[in-house]
Amino acid sequence: MEQWLAKNRDRLRADYFDFLRFRSISADPSCRAEVERCAQWVAAYLDRSGVPSELLRMEGGHPVVFGKRDGGRKPTLLIYGHYDVQPVDPLELWESDPFLPEERDGKVFARGAVDDKGQIFYAMAAVRALQESGIELPVNLLFCIEGEEESGSKALSQLLTRDPSRWKSDYLLVVDYDMLDEHTPAITLGSRGIVTMEVRLTGSHSDLHSGVLGGIAYNPNRALVELLADMWDRTGRVQVPGFYDQIEEIEPSALSPFSYRWTEEAIAQEFGIRALGGEAGRSLIEKNWLRPTLEINGLSGGYAGSGFKTVIPKEAIAKLSCRLVPGQHPEAIARQIERFCQTRAPQGMRVSVSIDHGGKPYRGNPHSPLAQAAKKAYEDVMGASCQMVLSGASVPIVADVVEAAGGAEVVGMGYGLPTDAIHAPNEHFSFSRLEKGLLTVARLVHELGRYQKSGIST
Amino acid sequence: MEQWLAKNRDRLRADYFDFLRFRSISADPSCRAEVERCAQWVAAYLDRSGVPSELLRMEGGHPVVFGKRDGGRKPTLLIYGHYDVQPVDPLELWESDPFLPEERDGKVFARGAVDDKGQIFYAMAAVRALQESGIELPVNLLFCIEGEEESGSKALSQLLTRDPSRWKSDYLLVVDYDMLDEHTPAITLGSRGIVTMEVRLTGSHSDLHSGVLGGIAYNPNRALVELLADMWDRTGRVQVPGFYDQIEEIEPSALSPFSYRWTEEAIAQEFGIRALGGEAGRSLIEKNWLRPTLEINGLSGGYAGSGFKTVIPKEAIAKLSCRLVPGQHPEAIARQIERFCQTRAPQGMRVSVSIDHGGKPYRGNPHSPLAQAAKKAYEDVMGASCQMVLSGASVPIVADVVEAAGGAEVVGMGYGLPTDAIHAPNEHFSFSRLEKGLLTVARLVHELGRYQKSGIST
Repeated sequence: MEQWLAKNRDRLRADYFDFLRFRSISADPSCRAEVERCAQWVAAYLDRSGVPSELLRMEGGHPVVFGKRDGGRKPTLLIYGHYDVQPVDPLELWESDPFLPEERDGKVFARGAVDDKGQIFYAMAAVRALQESGIELPVNLLFCIEGEEESGSKALSQLLTRDPSRWKSDYLLVVDYDMLDEHTPAITLGSRGIVTMEVRLTGSHSDLHSGVLGGIAYNPNRALVELLADMWDRTGRVQVPGFYDQIEEIEPSALSPFSYRWTEEAIAQEFGIRALGGEAGRSLIEKNWLRPTLEINGLSGGYAGSGFKTVIPKEAIAKLSCRLVPGQHPEAIARQIERFCQTRAPQGMRVSVSIDHGGKPYRGNPHSPLAQAAKKAYEDVMGASCQMVLSGASVPIVADVVEAAGGAEVVGMGYGLPTDAIHAPNEHFSFSRLEKGLLTVARLVHELGRYQKSGIST
Repeated sequence: MEQWLAKNRDRLRADYFDFLRFRSISADPSCRAEVERCAQWVAAYLDRSGVPSELLRMEGGHPVVFGKRDGGRKPTLLIYGHYDVQPVDPLELWESDPFLPEERDGKVFARGAVDDKGQIFYAMAAVRALQESGIELPVNLLFCIEGEEESGSKALSQLLTRDPSRWKSDYLLVVDYDMLDEHTPAITLGSRGIVTMEVRLTGSHSDLHSGVLGGIAYNPNRALVELLADMWDRTGRVQVPGFYDQIEEIEPSALSPFSYRWTEEAIAQEFGIRALGGEAGRSLIEKNWLRPTLEINGLSGGYAGSGFKTVIPKEAIAKLSCRLVPGQHPEAIARQIERFCQTRAPQGMRVSVSIDHGGKPYRGNPHSPLAQAAKKAYEDVMGASCQMVLSGASVPIVADVVEAAGGAEVVGMGYGLPTDAIHAPNEHFSFSRLEKGLLTVARLVHELGRYQKSGIST
């Protein structure tokens, strides 16, 4: 593989940059045509890598790239990733155009440089390298590269339900995760689920003058902050009735195969976080992996730009999300929050709650052949012990893919770092990690044959 | 005057539209040149109306148009208004360009159509009409038309202090107020003061992924809603220590010359307001005129646009304002709120409070010659009894002008209606009210001579 890399490095980087240039923001309707072109590019790349591909479509959605390389009676490895990206606001904080990838000091700055274009790109490139090096694969391959991971995975959800046989596989590799730190590889054996919603309070037909009607009208901004503040008690525990009721508590001993990186000092140093959230009395690892969260991801009401506007806005908006743990169902949790809003808002204030996509949490088995093969591949490439972790983040569709695949063993991998500024301005990746990713996926495919043959499978 | 109006109606409307076309948003630095051109236009209009004018300047500020028509030993009437306007966001809710005035059904839609371009324009036009009709004025005139009323009146404040003799006058007419309703004129004998500020909570160096660090970082949006929600108790009473301490309570009997228009049914009908704010147990008139308010005029944190962004923002912002009543000092109140924020925010969260402009409240005398002349003028023009009111809104500079003028008798007048959408999208005025305004100001000047001569002055 190293030989292939030495010969093909320039082409690899050029292809990566081509991929990053597509404005594939799935949440932004104005990017629709660009998302489509990006999907076509991915399918073409897989085709040229020996994985015949097609675009699967659901009405109103962005296409899912489906690739299949069938080599007869072998176990099947399904590789999942996504080609869509997050919005780029606030644009003014980017030091270079988010869709004109720029190399500075070996780092590549672009929206999607890591999440998830960079990561799924090295997985595709690994298969191309194996193909062009004439190496026989010990597994059949499926690729599922969707275009709506950042906005709800609706099309893929429907495709999974409609035609489950298409996705049947033994192993599921989700290439959308982080390392523990830049020297320490990690595989991820569980993610929290998610549900998102918008809460809108409306107090009047139009914006009001805050003097002319001030003191008479209940300001929707005030109603919103009071409603939201009531969602937590002073210990950080969510007060929405039923929120914690269905959680499957796990024994502390079940955490023994896992490593946790962060300390209070480290997050203060790295991110400037000095005010700690979550439930009082819980450890960082519990708060981050084992406990659900409720977050206000967006607040908007009235005029908060430069200068001042003496207005009582007609409405105020909050965007909320919850990270969920096993036992919690996305829609049930969202309905609890909706009920809380409807019953707690001031009398006469109009409340509307619109619930967006959700995704269930999942947990994998640290002793599966896939987990072992992935660990070995990482250790060979990095020369360092590979840790096992859970993730506080969500790849909402994974639980559904596991189900459609017939209960495949699942492992999340990746070369992201928490400092890569994913979902934020100036997202970046490094060429070095891109290449290690390629080598790791190639190695993992090889090792999976060995672990399978030697019957380590449990 | 009616004759002059009949002959000059087209020119009057054309001049009014010219005035409305200037993008004189004082809070927006990009409008600076346009604000300057607008001031020059106002000065030229006064010059041509027999009131020699000049632009008074303070460094960094927008010019104040100062006009003076001196006719010897007569009492002096100072007329105050402003040529600057509020910002126009949200622009997408305007049905026509806010700076291309458009007539629809006798209404003129434009930012500033009423507040305060429309109002100060008819006052200037009244003087032009008197001048062109060859009528001798019973008073000397001063005009003070400033360009920063919507953003703090800083330049005028400084000019008032620097050269108080320039402003010496017996009567102050503030042309920036509303009628009681479209059939009922009113003069305003007091306004609440105001102070505005921005509160910013910062939790980290940059935006964070709400999964990767969710549960660990204290979300600034949550800290902000908790901090703001604590500012009121459940009865709507402001909980900031000291907020009500200095209020000069007034006897209910002092309200007897005054009329109040609104009822709960009327505000529900007119504005769709069904949730009532202010302090529980107080009447609407108290809440609106006699009690101070604390309002959240703007909220912003994270991403609240279309789609969803799973972010914990690095910071969250609230824009706050208070309406103040006699006894309350703007800066003292702002410092109380600043202290509240600094002491109540979660440990480790960075808090910054920046305090903007303030204006003191003022109250006038319902029995002064100016109040009596204004009442008579309105009644002659409208054929309806003129009410006396207070205002819940603020013309922050008025208290300072009264002081600089040497304790002049003050009256606020105007032909605005609460339904004119001032400070909101689709602000509008009518030609009919514009002309009545002109006639009323002309008549008031005449009546003021009579009340003065007949010694009604107390």
